[in-house]
Amino acid sequence: MGDVLYSWISDLFPITRSLTGDGVRQTLGYFKDLLPSMVISEVPCGSQVLDWNVPAEWTIHDAFISNLKGDRLVDMAQSNLHVVGYSEPVDTIMTRAELERHLYSLPDLPEAIPYVTSYYQRHWGFCLSEIQRHNLGAGPFRVVINSDLFSGTMTYGEVVIPGKSSREVLFSTYVCHPSMANNELSGPVVTTALALLAQSMPVRRYTYRFVFAPETIGSITYISKHGPELKTAVDAGWVVTCVGDDRAYSYLPSRRGDTLADKVSLRAINDLGLRVDKYSFLDRGSDERQWCSPLLDLPVSSLMRSKYGTYPEYHTSLDNLDFVSPSGLQGAYTLYRRCVEILEESPRWRSTIVGEPQLGRRGLYPNVSKVGSAIDSKHILDVLTYCDGSNEEWEIAELVDLPTSVVQETCLLLLSHGLVE
Amino acid sequence: MGDVLYSWISDLFPITRSLTGDGVRQTLGYFKDLLPSMVISEVPCGSQVLDWNVPAEWTIHDAFISNLKGDRLVDMAQSNLHVVGYSEPVDTIMTRAELERHLYSLPDLPEAIPYVTSYYQRHWGFCLSEIQRHNLGAGPFRVVINSDLFSGTMTYGEVVIPGKSSREVLFSTYVCHPSMANNELSGPVVTTALALLAQSMPVRRYTYRFVFAPETIGSITYISKHGPELKTAVDAGWVVTCVGDDRAYSYLPSRRGDTLADKVSLRAINDLGLRVDKYSFLDRGSDERQWCSPLLDLPVSSLMRSKYGTYPEYHTSLDNLDFVSPSGLQGAYTLYRRCVEILEESPRWRSTIVGEPQLGRRGLYPNVSKVGSAIDSKHILDVLTYCDGSNEEWEIAELVDLPTSVVQETCLLLLSHGLVE
Amino acid sequence: MGDVLYSWISDLFPITRSLTGDGVRQTLGYFKDLLPSMVISEVPCGSQVLDWNVPAEWTIHDAFISNLKGDRLVDMAQSNLHVVGYSEPVDTIMTRAELERHLYSLPDLPEAIPYVTSYYQRHWGFCLSEIQRHNLGAGPFRVVINSDLFSGTMTYGEVVIPGKSSREVLFSTYVCHPSMANNELSGPVVTTALALLAQSMPVRRYTYRFVFAPETIGSITYISKHGPELKTAVDAGWVVTCVGDDRAYSYLPSRRGDTLADKVSLRAINDLGLRVDKYSFLDRGSDERQWCSPLLDLPVSSLMRSKYGTYPEYHTSLDNLDFVSPSGLQGAYTLYRRCVEILEESPRWRSTIVGEPQLGRRGLYPNVSKVGSAIDSKHILDVLTYCDGSNEEWEIAELVDLPTSVVQETCLLLLSHGLVE
Repeated sequence: MGDVLYSWISDLFPITRSLTGDGVRQTLGYFKDLLPSMVISEVPCGSQVLDWNVPAEWTIHDAFISNLKGDRLVDMAQSNLHVVGYSEPVDTIMTRAELERHLYSLPDLPEAIPYVTSYYQRHWGFCLSEIQRHNLGAGPFRVVINSDLFSGTMTYGEVVIPGKSSREVLFSTYVCHPSMANNELSGPVVTTALALLAQSMPVRRYTYRFVFAPETIGSITYISKHGPELKTAVDAGWVVTCVGDDRAYSYLPSRRGDTLADKVSLRAINDLGLRVDKYSFLDRGSDERQWCSPLLDLPVSSLMRSKYGTYPEYHTSLDNLDFVSPSGLQGAYTLYRRCVEILEESPRWRSTIVGEPQLGRRGLYPNVSKVGSAIDSKHILDVLTYCDGSNEEWEIAELVDLPTSVVQETCLLLLSHGLVE
Repeated sequence: MGDVLYSWISDLFPITRSLTGDGVRQTLGYFKDLLPSMVISEVPCGSQVLDWNVPAEWTIHDAFISNLKGDRLVDMAQSNLHVVGYSEPVDTIMTRAELERHLYSLPDLPEAIPYVTSYYQRHWGFCLSEIQRHNLGAGPFRVVINSDLFSGTMTYGEVVIPGKSSREVLFSTYVCHPSMANNELSGPVVTTALALLAQSMPVRRYTYRFVFAPETIGSITYISKHGPELKTAVDAGWVVTCVGDDRAYSYLPSRRGDTLADKVSLRAINDLGLRVDKYSFLDRGSDERQWCSPLLDLPVSSLMRSKYGTYPEYHTSLDNLDFVSPSGLQGAYTLYRRCVEILEESPRWRSTIVGEPQLGRRGLYPNVSKVGSAIDSKHILDVLTYCDGSNEEWEIAELVDLPTSVVQETCLLLLSHGLVE
Repeated sequence: MGDVLYSWISDLFPITRSLTGDGVRQTLGYFKDLLPSMVISEVPCGSQVLDWNVPAEWTIHDAFISNLKGDRLVDMAQSNLHVVGYSEPVDTIMTRAELERHLYSLPDLPEAIPYVTSYYQRHWGFCLSEIQRHNLGAGPFRVVINSDLFSGTMTYGEVVIPGKSSREVLFSTYVCHPSMANNELSGPVVTTALALLAQSMPVRRYTYRFVFAPETIGSITYISKHGPELKTAVDAGWVVTCVGDDRAYSYLPSRRGDTLADKVSLRAINDLGLRVDKYSFLDRGSDERQWCSPLLDLPVSSLMRSKYGTYPEYHTSLDNLDFVSPSGLQGAYTLYRRCVEILEESPRWRSTIVGEPQLGRRGLYPNVSKVGSAIDSKHILDVLTYCDGSNEEWEIAELVDLPTSVVQETCLLLLSHGLVE
């Protein structure tokens, strides 16, 4: 699965995404090919959505800084990070001093092109490496940004996969960043894999909802349309972002910190024996800001590999195809799949008999007791002792300190012997 | 008391107990002499009890391995541990190789005879020390087990001592192990002492129930007859086992872990200033497996000296009269007596006056206040400040960090001055 | 404010206070000049108050030990601590041996005169430094105490400042110690400053009650008159004592330990970044003994500088004007003022919008997002995310780990933008 996810990222990496525009549409189209049930919606620019307005649609055709001979010194064809997101059009000659106010680079990471946007205030600019900036020369320069800002639409996608219950599990991810791999392409590809997983399950306890939208304004828009139904239906949710590298696992709790999403996250981490960096909700930075906002207050947490803002490559050209890996993606997918399994496969079993069962006549117990024996059946009895009708399987796993999968196997064995119901 | 308990163990040690049979009857008869109110019941073999069936009654007359000259090489007359419990009859000549499949020894404890049983599958065998096994010789051997397995009865005893309330305190112990001292004879002798204590109390707040039964099948049988009434009546209970040695104190919580039995156990430990090894319910191994089973769920914990399974002599001939001691037994008895005292002597006092009392005119306070004085009456005021009608005496002891006995004395002093009611 | 408080202490220091008498009246008169709304009450000696009786009124005119030539060796004119409080009259000649039974000194603090009283048993005595005692000579001595013990009255004062709600905040302090500064004069002067603060507030959420009374018998008397109304009305209270030195801050919880007074105390300590010695209610020693007594059970804690009984100068002539300081008093006043501010200025705000607000168009957010930016608005969003209508401002301060004042400013900013209500 890690290799497949990595190949999807490789396909999508070159596309110039932004909050709006054809880059988002291409990206969502790619996912719709994988998930034909995806519904793609367009929202008119200028629409009022909660406290916000959908910004203009932005199209970028070309952007460069050249010398007067026409040699391109900074060229968006080399990297779509070179142009500040939502730059207004410009075509002029200017001095080095004039140009300086429009340049962004990172002195501490001299080879990295930073990622800069200006969605809500008209502006233009170029991002370049510190080395490029040093070598630009004295000027004058020709500066061209061939962009359109017009009253088009903003695009988002959603997939809803019904289950036996209308209680929902929400996965949210975003599709508005240009060529960067951990933040963001890892998010939508792992989310797509989770949607495929949910689709493939013959029976679903929960209904699954997957939202692919531009960050912040996309989830704001989605809440403006679906807020009340989400508030009623969602039992647990996750923001899927920064799930592609190998350096770390990270857990960001929900606002309340003790929701089902939090408990399941921690149980999944335990089940897989992962070492995880645990953050506070005060460290939040993605769409949990919207899902957990106080009047909506959804039970949404986030499981990540290296959390946004904690790795130096974050929001630069170094967050590239070398930074993420098949194994990094696989690790995150496995962790989220564990969450789904915990949610799906957790009946509350109740012992059918008073006292311990006679395991021996069921072939579940060695018949000759001696020093050192009688351990093989210990898991069976430990699990059974907590099958009192109040504990879900994964809660029993916490109580007996075993992987949930072992508890699940044990419960199935108990069921096959009629010892639980 | 420790010496008396030790002498009872010495009397009972040689008897060949098993799940059923005359060894159990003799043992219960000994306790009935001490506790004439004990009711002894017989349950027919084959009876269905919950998920189990009472096994056949087993009688053992003789068991030995000899050479063909008739020299007994392993002889049950030397130790009743030599014969595997519930061995079927055998009288045959066999080679060393054939015999090997029926021999049990402990390479790590070469002088110890292990304790092995096979209650629920027909089998026969001999237990011997590693040294004996080494010296058996090449054979052939004559092998004789003169036993009966027949449709008799299983025997258990119970003592119920009524109190002012029908709320119950349960003590459970077992009487099915042959010549071993800590596990098990320490258990029934300390339980007998506790029953004598309860009998001797002029007034009892609680009704006390003492169950002496074969482990597992005995408590299962008892629950099959008395389960619903126990579930309604028992406020706290303990499994009394492994209470005879000097090495450690141990505490095994109930399934829920926060019942009255758990709180009183911990308070008693505190009162006596004991260092205790605290186990998890997952470390359980005796009749709390039945009392705490999920559909019954009694508040039963266990206070022990060295817990079963944690000392190398466990379930071997080394768990003998040298392993237990009068002081070890005394320590366990004192700890359980403290539990009874806490349960019995814990009224909820309520201050009779608003504000602090004038201790001086009651002779409870030094009348000249000066630097360093006014400490003598501190306990009085500390205890009184928590006499708000909601705290039992032992809970006040937790709050003021004093032994329960000091709080009890203080409350009596306050009562004698009319300061609490 | 510290200098003003120190000057009040200096004015009041020489007065010879005791449980009763003109010293108390003079002291309360001084505070009534500052707080004209103070109501001063007189309670007849011998009155039954709860479990106590108001003792006789005591007046002391003169007290000395002289040699037979008339040279005063110990003279109350030098320090009112020289005479044991409530000494009965005496005028006699006695030997050194006879005198010894009436002398109190401190071998470990040879220069200090101890403070000793005998309110409830007739007695007389002299306190002197160990050095004075050493130099007294062989005697005989003339011993004179010119005092009156008569059926007068006991005096106390109270100030009630009504607020919008009849829910009350109680501050209690005492006025019965002669010339000592930290214990006690710091207490009533800081309490007076808090009453002036409450008076000066244009709007008060709470009603404030300030009680100035002799310790123990004064609060007992006050409870005998106002107990039921206090039990109904008081939401939080503090005993103000030992609030004048620079060595430490101290917190003594209420009996229950988790009342509003406790939470606000801990929040105020946090807000001011103070290192505080935390005591147990078992370390109590002042009028919380009465306010928190079990049948009354008010939510009363105590914030102090160096707690009574913990500094060597306590209850000696060394607890003088050198021991307290303007900065020590200022620190305690600031801490209590913070408690008042937390209680007064803590509305429960509720976000007005779903999702996060668009801070940018309100000028609350930098419009160009880039690496390392977007931190300035973090506090705004952190505070807003907990404005769910259930948390008071100071509780939000705990959640976001910011000073309450920053949260208050932030909430006002949010209010001015219509983002909370």
